Amino acid sequence: MNFIDLNCDMGESFGTYKKGNDEELLQYVTSANIACGFHAGDASTMRNTVQLALEHGVGIGAHPGLDDLVGFGRRTIDITPKEAYEIVVYQIGALKAFVEAEGSSLQHVKPHGALYNMAAKNKELSAAIAEAVYNVDANLILFGLAGTELYHAGNNLNLHTASEVFSDRTYQQDGTLTPRSEKNAIITDHKTASKQVIRMIQDQQVLSQQKIDVPIKADTICIHGDGEYAVEFARFISSALKEANIEVRKISDVLPQKS
Amino acid sequence: MNFIDLNCDMGESFGTYKKGNDEELLQYVTSANIACGFHAGDASTMRNTVQLALEHGVGIGAHPGLDDLVGFGRRTIDITPKEAYEIVVYQIGALKAFVEAEGSSLQHVKPHGALYNMAAKNKELSAAIAEAVYNVDANLILFGLAGTELYHAGNNLNLHTASEVFSDRTYQQDGTLTPRSEKNAIITDHKTASKQVIRMIQDQQVLSQQKIDVPIKADTICIHGDGEYAVEFARFISSALKEANIEVRKISDVLPQKS
Amino acid sequence: MNFIDLNCDMGESFGTYKKGNDEELLQYVTSANIACGFHAGDASTMRNTVQLALEHGVGIGAHPGLDDLVGFGRRTIDITPKEAYEIVVYQIGALKAFVEAEGSSLQHVKPHGALYNMAAKNKELSAAIAEAVYNVDANLILFGLAGTELYHAGNNLNLHTASEVFSDRTYQQDGTLTPRSEKNAIITDHKTASKQVIRMIQDQQVLSQQKIDVPIKADTICIHGDGEYAVEFARFISSALKEANIEVRKISDVLPQKS
Amino acid sequence: MNFIDLNCDMGESFGTYKKGNDEELLQYVTSANIACGFHAGDASTMRNTVQLALEHGVGIGAHPGLDDLVGFGRRTIDITPKEAYEIVVYQIGALKAFVEAEGSSLQHVKPHGALYNMAAKNKELSAAIAEAVYNVDANLILFGLAGTELYHAGNNLNLHTASEVFSDRTYQQDGTLTPRSEKNAIITDHKTASKQVIRMIQDQQVLSQQKIDVPIKADTICIHGDGEYAVEFARFISSALKEANIEVRKISDVLPQKS
Repeated sequence: MNFIDLNCDMGESFGTYKKGNDEELLQYVTSANIACGFHAGDASTMRNTVQLALEHGVGIGAHPGLDDLVGFGRRTIDITPKEAYEIVVYQIGALKAFVEAEGSSLQHVKPHGALYNMAAKNKELSAAIAEAVYNVDANLILFGLAGTELYHAGNNLNLHTASEVFSDRTYQQDGTLTPRSEKNAIITDHKTASKQVIRMIQDQQVLSQQKIDVPIKADTICIHGDGEYAVEFARFISSALKEANIEVRKISDVLPQKS
Repeated sequence: MNFIDLNCDMGESFGTYKKGNDEELLQYVTSANIACGFHAGDASTMRNTVQLALEHGVGIGAHPGLDDLVGFGRRTIDITPKEAYEIVVYQIGALKAFVEAEGSSLQHVKPHGALYNMAAKNKELSAAIAEAVYNVDANLILFGLAGTELYHAGNNLNLHTASEVFSDRTYQQDGTLTPRSEKNAIITDHKTASKQVIRMIQDQQVLSQQKIDVPIKADTICIHGDGEYAVEFARFISSALKEANIEVRKISDVLPQKS
Repeated sequence: MNFIDLNCDMGESFGTYKKGNDEELLQYVTSANIACGFHAGDASTMRNTVQLALEHGVGIGAHPGLDDLVGFGRRTIDITPKEAYEIVVYQIGALKAFVEAEGSSLQHVKPHGALYNMAAKNKELSAAIAEAVYNVDANLILFGLAGTELYHAGNNLNLHTASEVFSDRTYQQDGTLTPRSEKNAIITDHKTASKQVIRMIQDQQVLSQQKIDVPIKADTICIHGDGEYAVEFARFISSALKEANIEVRKISDVLPQKS
Repeated sequence: MNFIDLNCDMGESFGTYKKGNDEELLQYVTSANIACGFHAGDASTMRNTVQLALEHGVGIGAHPGLDDLVGFGRRTIDITPKEAYEIVVYQIGALKAFVEAEGSSLQHVKPHGALYNMAAKNKELSAAIAEAVYNVDANLILFGLAGTELYHAGNNLNLHTASEVFSDRTYQQDGTLTPRSEKNAIITDHKTASKQVIRMIQDQQVLSQQKIDVPIKADTICIHGDGEYAVEFARFISSALKEANIEVRKISDVLPQKS
């Protein structure tokens, strides 16, 4: 039987500002990437979200971002690998404490927004991020976009890694995502999106925009948590996966034990 | 033989802003209270200070403060016990990750500035802070001013606690510090200051401003890290303690094992 | 004919976080209190809100708050009068620049949240805030709760002041608001609320909880912008005022010229 | 007779963190670029620095930077021209209010650090910054590195502009600064530095690293305020200029009136 993990960004509220549909999405996803106070989230939101995720039996991940609340961590900041290491250690630590204070343990780390995108292409930055994860807790699973520097950096350190794929984004011949600036970058039709991921899981292939099949490894699917159709889409893809006989399980239940 | 711990606030730089004489003070103190990014400190400063402290074999503590960089955590903010719990968990976690990333472990927690002062008098706030410490790691030592609510809150949870005394502050008949607003609050003479702490350690007594001896327990002495005489005073008190046959050791080496 | 100004807090979004129903409320209110980046608002939100307010012909006010985004400026911070002066000058200046960049001019200043409440009772703080307003632009109108220190401080400096009243709060015999902690503090019935303000405007009286009439001066009514019924209530009170033959006009159109 | 303005960054302290030698440098410089709370400075520091500058009769400029206190505004952040416009309006406004509260008026605007460097090469960003300056107050003087996009953007809007040169940096054949990464980028010898600027002022020429003279317009010299030799160098260059019969005057005293 095939397995897949569904991950979603959560805990993105800040103070009196509310964002996202965490409670509803937690019914469908198996891994929660929780903001750690730099691009979103505050101590109170982190605690609440950790508690909510635990109630739903969902794997908890730190979702460290750039220190840019007003830009929601989506603007590139020209940080050094050393700075990346430091802000990632800091943020993982903060979230890990909330998880451990509830008697549980942290499952994974997935960088957010611009940090994730910068790391995908930058070997030194990715190495620094992977080292931060490794040094804080070598058992943490690093989430990285399939085929990118970040994913490789985790493997190079012998970290558990999860290869992340997108259901609602199209792919290029070289395995990268079609840039959002191009048309056809986004898949808006739910059926097309779910078919793409089911094929990724069952056949380890995705049909690129160049009409050529590209090999891809799918350990976890990124579910967008914002937007008005977020919950609806999460429900749709969950049932499509079920029908395809693919079990949705949190990544830590599925990964082979590290030797 | 008598023992005492010397603690000092450290890691209070921020970005390009430098503060304190950490390297020099680390020659004399045995416990470092490291700022965690709220009232001072940033991820880079935290990492550097943790590394420096480890090089000197000094016990490392989290020094969580109010979220008020511009006020250096010294202004009272009317936070709830719930908020206190949350910001303390967050900050301990962040620092703990840096310590563990270096292969060591966190020794203690000492709240900073206004948070420390508010907790001293506020039972609910102190209970929340102690609970935060306990939930993150029940082996952490909570530093609290001798006789205050914070010190009691730690004991109530069966945490290891360290009763903190001041060498350079005078005491009142009820065991509290003379408020800074009153004259004679500060002891500026090094000899008088060191005599006061030596008596606290040897006789468990301090002579109050009312000329009455007050019982006091001294586990750790707070050494101020700022000011032009900070290093000089640290050196002076270290040698005064040595002459009095009092060994300066980090608190975690001295405390009895928890049953 | 009687006049009244309706004021409402606006521009409280921050980055990607949205708050309030500014566009809808701007149909009913005549003065907008725009957040200035400390407790809410960012440069982009400020510019957008200023433009929106100008499109609706609404008087624009700076709404300076404590530097506490996570607490939305609602938590008391123990600042000095000097600090109050400085953060108020800063915030007024920032908003004033956006208004002047659009070719218009700033109408008023109304402190936010905890700063407003602290000022109401604290003479020194109120004097500092009034001085900040006066020094930046002596033609600005200072909004203060009827009968409080802040209102008096503005008058003492010969600033234009607007005496602010609440439609949805009950009053005590001494002219103060019934604290929120007490029952009957809030008026939830729209009719009762509008009757209270109409009487304040027409008779300069309000019936206190002690069943005694208290004299009150009503220059501007505070309309709450958040909550699900905010827009509905704004619409209701607007038409109730109209029926009572009270014209809703922005405060700067009504105030007598300063001699 | 020749004139030149000497400008220096100031007001870069933050809360309890002190930076720079403002008081000493104010004896030598004629224009102060005062940080506005984003990359450095806080409301209290801004007020103090404005007062100090006025006591010394120095022209006051806003020194807006990126919103990055921990990086001191030196890290590139990928902001849009729209965002640049907004953060510049905000920061100019905040500083302008402090200057006007003291009964004086703002003289100039000079972007800081990464914002200055980004603008130098980016036409859209520079146009947005120049528009922000123009919209807040069309009489403000925009400082831009000689020959860059920022300098041109100011002229395009018919703003007063000041062409800024460096005494301690070498130049390339195309009029740009030698990048810091290259050797010979920095001129450490005071005599060589002062000779370079005197020649720029008297002959409108600078000898590039390629041994070719490049035409250059020098309205204002950037004096670095940090570093241990900052004050010494300011004193040296002041007296070298005096000996060369070049009068040091603030830029607003020298500029031709706008038609």
